[in-house]
Amino acid sequence: MIYANEKIRNTYRVPQPEGRGAYIRLDQNENPDGVPQWLFDAAMAKVSPEFLAIYPEESVPTAKYARLFGLQKENVTLTAGSTVGMGYVIKVFGQPGKDILCVTPSFAMYEVYAKMIGMNVKQLSYEADFSYKVEKTLDAINDDTGIVVLVNPNMPVGNVYPREDIVRIVEKAKRHDAAVIIDEAYYYFYDKSSVDLVKEYDNVFVLRTFSKMLSVPALRLGVVMSCPENIRCINNYKPHYTVNSIALLFAEAIVDNHERLLKELKEQYLEGKAYVMQVLRENGYETLPSEGCYVCIKPKYRSSREITDLLEANGILILCGKDGLAGWLRLTIAHKKYMEIFMDALLRLDRP
Amino acid sequence: MIYANEKIRNTYRVPQPEGRGAYIRLDQNENPDGVPQWLFDAAMAKVSPEFLAIYPEESVPTAKYARLFGLQKENVTLTAGSTVGMGYVIKVFGQPGKDILCVTPSFAMYEVYAKMIGMNVKQLSYEADFSYKVEKTLDAINDDTGIVVLVNPNMPVGNVYPREDIVRIVEKAKRHDAAVIIDEAYYYFYDKSSVDLVKEYDNVFVLRTFSKMLSVPALRLGVVMSCPENIRCINNYKPHYTVNSIALLFAEAIVDNHERLLKELKEQYLEGKAYVMQVLRENGYETLPSEGCYVCIKPKYRSSREITDLLEANGILILCGKDGLAGWLRLTIAHKKYMEIFMDALLRLDRP
Repeated sequence: MIYANEKIRNTYRVPQPEGRGAYIRLDQNENPDGVPQWLFDAAMAKVSPEFLAIYPEESVPTAKYARLFGLQKENVTLTAGSTVGMGYVIKVFGQPGKDILCVTPSFAMYEVYAKMIGMNVKQLSYEADFSYKVEKTLDAINDDTGIVVLVNPNMPVGNVYPREDIVRIVEKAKRHDAAVIIDEAYYYFYDKSSVDLVKEYDNVFVLRTFSKMLSVPALRLGVVMSCPENIRCINNYKPHYTVNSIALLFAEAIVDNHERLLKELKEQYLEGKAYVMQVLRENGYETLPSEGCYVCIKPKYRSSREITDLLEANGILILCGKDGLAGWLRLTIAHKKYMEIFMDALLRLDRP
Repeated sequence: MIYANEKIRNTYRVPQPEGRGAYIRLDQNENPDGVPQWLFDAAMAKVSPEFLAIYPEESVPTAKYARLFGLQKENVTLTAGSTVGMGYVIKVFGQPGKDILCVTPSFAMYEVYAKMIGMNVKQLSYEADFSYKVEKTLDAINDDTGIVVLVNPNMPVGNVYPREDIVRIVEKAKRHDAAVIIDEAYYYFYDKSSVDLVKEYDNVFVLRTFSKMLSVPALRLGVVMSCPENIRCINNYKPHYTVNSIALLFAEAIVDNHERLLKELKEQYLEGKAYVMQVLRENGYETLPSEGCYVCIKPKYRSSREITDLLEANGILILCGKDGLAGWLRLTIAHKKYMEIFMDALLRLDRP
């Protein structure tokens, strides 16, 4: 057996689900319908055999995205999905032997990346009522801290970090030369962003994705925003041509049509959310408050595993909570038509 | 300034050219026309807003690609371009402090990746006549060697490594616990592959790309082939969902229609190659023998820089050789119609 980095050889990776196309997909926080047809048509208009024969060019969509959020193009780099972007930040700015502070449960890849480069993962926990005390994070920041991760809103619980708490964390981290990743994968569902902080603090990284509200997970498009010197370092690390040209066309079309698109997508989402939350409440289901496009639901009669399996047999994918969320269902909130299908099935299947 | 890995902070990366769509592109070894329309239509048939709303699924195209080349699916992993694939191999199997043996000139990213992880780059040179003596590589392999890189055919000179030399290198590398990367980016232009060696040797990695003969560089699709344990390690490292779903559709369509597609693409290419080589010869141009889709040409009257600039002003992109290839032009060989345009321009511009 030849040499391989032992940390990588011994990493465990959760297999990704496949064969999901035939199901109603309420498990991965995708929008099952995708972008409106008019946006799709606008973005795809240029796609031809010749277009696919040219290496991708990122400058224009990068600059347009930056301008949309009040930044310079030097503040932004595009990545082949947000998961790749968070990997860049950890691999470039993560110091082996230092701590990375996360909240559990959350997105699992932070821990995976950090362990692979030899950082110590400190998982901070929710309270028993699934509230999160920000003092836990603040108290944990010290000279051993390399990176602090704030997923805002956090997934899958759905709590958010208020602006003033984020600033306190960023400033304390700064005093200890630590970076802060603010993962805004669920931006748009929750409209308060920290993106302006990258203009003020050189230790802040804001991550975004086109896979959630923006509805094109198949294309793999993420964004890292930080100060120009940090973005320069990431671009030193990032292989060239990693974001494909169709993703870049969608990035441009989405930025060019931002107001109209977001109005449509948000209306659809909010209608679905209002509906499902009301029916859950009317039927006495306990839920966790969430600012993301997902909600944790406690089944009334059957176990979460039974319900998840029964729903799958009925063509509906949702997730079964585990670890701290054992016993809960994890539902992606989407268009009302899917919420109706889900609620019909839940009320039918969750029986004594 | 926060901590960043110093090697990454200090890396120099060559900026990638942009705005190439308006030119005849004979500079990056792309096929300017792309895939035939029938293949494009077959691959794109499934693309819809809903399709783009589902996370990518790699299993089926991975297994199909493996089968096409006589391997098991466990021998193969797909990557967002071959450049990402070579990065995975170096980052997972490259040992800091060990040597990586390359041939210069060649593809620049091997050196970039290796330096970033702290390997020592040993560049082995061509002879004055641009032949390469394989003994140079064999003699350089010792206990300090971590990785040997064979780009076959090598780029931009176009020489190839005969099978028996590759086996000698692989076996000597194996005795010193070193890995061998065989980069077959220009497979199909040169039909001899080393892919079967991954079944016999656990220190061999074969890289492929869909950007050259397969004509979809915009989609970012590469392949790494090795023994199952090595592929498992790469999959531990590789972020999930990095290859986008449209690239995966093309992978399937290309494998499903492999014979017909390659017949068409090769005929077109060989016709263009026969034409351009004949006209260059007839006009007394010195060229380097090449088994890749590119040829180095010595201008007769003007400097290579002047010719390249004049061609660009005439809407044609080619490359200007540098370092060991200073004074040479680097032309991508493509469809005869582009070779005619190039030759007309060259004969017009390269004047006393």
